[in-house]
Amino acid sequence: MHAVNFELITKDGRARRGRLATPHGAIETPVFMPVGTAATVKALKPDDVRELGAQIILANTYHLYLRPGHEVVKKAGGLHRFMHWDRPILTDSGGFQVFSLSSINKITEEGVTFASHIDGSRHLLSPEKSIEIQNALGADIIMAFDECVPYPAERGYVEASVLRTTRWAGRCKEAHGDTERQSLFGIMQGGMFKDLRRQSAEQITALDLPGYAIGGLSVGEPKDLMYEILDDCTEYLPPDRPRYLMGVGSPDALLEGIERGVDMFDCVMPTREARHGRAMTRGGSVNLRNAAYTEDFGPLDYSCDCYTCRNFSRAYLRHLVMAKEILGATLISIHNLTFLTHLMERARKAIEENTYASYKKEAMERYYRR
Amino acid sequence: MHAVNFELITKDGRARRGRLATPHGAIETPVFMPVGTAATVKALKPDDVRELGAQIILANTYHLYLRPGHEVVKKAGGLHRFMHWDRPILTDSGGFQVFSLSSINKITEEGVTFASHIDGSRHLLSPEKSIEIQNALGADIIMAFDECVPYPAERGYVEASVLRTTRWAGRCKEAHGDTERQSLFGIMQGGMFKDLRRQSAEQITALDLPGYAIGGLSVGEPKDLMYEILDDCTEYLPPDRPRYLMGVGSPDALLEGIERGVDMFDCVMPTREARHGRAMTRGGSVNLRNAAYTEDFGPLDYSCDCYTCRNFSRAYLRHLVMAKEILGATLISIHNLTFLTHLMERARKAIEENTYASYKKEAMERYYRR
Repeated sequence: MHAVNFELITKDGRARRGRLATPHGAIETPVFMPVGTAATVKALKPDDVRELGAQIILANTYHLYLRPGHEVVKKAGGLHRFMHWDRPILTDSGGFQVFSLSSINKITEEGVTFASHIDGSRHLLSPEKSIEIQNALGADIIMAFDECVPYPAERGYVEASVLRTTRWAGRCKEAHGDTERQSLFGIMQGGMFKDLRRQSAEQITALDLPGYAIGGLSVGEPKDLMYEILDDCTEYLPPDRPRYLMGVGSPDALLEGIERGVDMFDCVMPTREARHGRAMTRGGSVNLRNAAYTEDFGPLDYSCDCYTCRNFSRAYLRHLVMAKEILGATLISIHNLTFLTHLMERARKAIEENTYASYKKEAMERYYRR
Repeated sequence: MHAVNFELITKDGRARRGRLATPHGAIETPVFMPVGTAATVKALKPDDVRELGAQIILANTYHLYLRPGHEVVKKAGGLHRFMHWDRPILTDSGGFQVFSLSSINKITEEGVTFASHIDGSRHLLSPEKSIEIQNALGADIIMAFDECVPYPAERGYVEASVLRTTRWAGRCKEAHGDTERQSLFGIMQGGMFKDLRRQSAEQITALDLPGYAIGGLSVGEPKDLMYEILDDCTEYLPPDRPRYLMGVGSPDALLEGIERGVDMFDCVMPTREARHGRAMTRGGSVNLRNAAYTEDFGPLDYSCDCYTCRNFSRAYLRHLVMAKEILGATLISIHNLTFLTHLMERARKAIEENTYASYKKEAMERYYRR
């Protein structure tokens, strides 16, 4: 018995419409998961996140291990209670962050030794340690500890890394006990080598886990290459398990991913863009630092019904951005996340109605017309 | 006919329980007004500010004149609409800020020449200009342009300044046309000289304005001296007009001010303290940077029913503060403003019940016991 259970409702081409049951409620897929790195979706109250329709959020093992410490979160009653979020949570394994955020790191069979980006202190993150931390945090979905190979990478390095990631995934499964409370997802790697992707997928899926992620994409490679690799990846994954494309959140990548059979996505982009004064709209990206918005008293997006678009003008949002007011980040984050929530809602509807191809074409043309 | 109308409901000693009718609704006094300097109460959505019970907020003429410009706000339909706040607003005159925020300033009979703290550009703020800006912003209550004399100041300087502030107040009244939409309050000055305070009050109240502020206190003088001066100030003001003590918001100063017959207060302190990780509670000030709160899973204040205290622990708030997460400023601001809202609610009730003296004593002992 797994903590999560995936139901594939219908398909339109390779695009999938599904439902993922979790201990904290069901998630309609395809789904975009807002990122709450340090147990907060930046600049938003959990009520804001709920109100904008987020079904599940992601939190970060690396960050929470370093601060406040997973033991503190456990004593608080787990992440849900600590951050006052009663819908599903997914925690990543920390694998990506030890490579991208800590300056010094050393990979051995045991795990990765790294220096904290906060105070420089040395730590070892291993498959067992990552699972221990994620068990303490208590998310509905936890991720296997993997190595996310950078781009570009030599074939020889990727070959060895894929094998290590497989061994680490096995150790994660071994270390993870309470599968009824938390479901462990595996992560396939393999860089930009199709045969290694296939090999990784075969080895990881052999572990018979309740879900699988595609890691190591959107790491700097050209988008066309990403889609080409992704095209194959989803073919190697079992149809009855959810597929999660990690770290992807631009509208085009979401739409391309759904077309290729991906069910779950996450990315810091919508909230990070918001903190830089950039909004995602159906007419394309809007940079509120642009002086053209000084006296633009219309909403960010006329077709949007979010709290921000219902109540505030581009002129006011631009004012907040220029004055470096926190409310600017809050209001644009609400809008950007709502924008992606709506994009996914419409995608789900289109799949149900067997019109995904035309929906995707129309959404792409609208968003990228300028 | 004035835009605002004050009703003195009852008194308990010198403490006053009143109601101030405005074009955007009635305000129960004594009242604390949260400050929304740049057309936003920092880190809060207007819905948060409404929900925590704020009856009126203050915005800043100096800041809004420089950015986004009062003409932009006027074109947006005024400040209420621009910032999506439908309760009363008070704008200050900018007088205080040209002295405290701009590095270069020169006072003449005409007004004050100053350099913008944003880009160094030169501007003149005069009584007429301040009223023009405040008319464009459209707040329910606007303030006369005055000189806030620093502490300490020579008697000779204060004497001349009091006379100038009186002349400027007359010019403000002259410049302000639409008294049915916006009410102009006068400001008495006079530094720490009781006879000059009396003289200023007599001259300003001779203008027969719908409300009066006490300016030039809480500018660095010892608190005992402030209360001593304040003791007299309220005696010089007509009982049928609201009295506003500017820039004061610590619990003790609010309680002392109410005792001396003040009706309105404002201060950036509760929100500024919040951004520095400090919370105001019935048990005193709580600095969340203190490691003692790392595993403190109780609320900030057990007696508080605000969104923050209902849903989050001190441990979580401390985590947010340490991780420099925006949500920390938001949640502590909600609490601090709720704390002052409750303090004022209880004060109003105590005045109604003729128990203000014992309420004040008890509240002071509780808040300052450590």
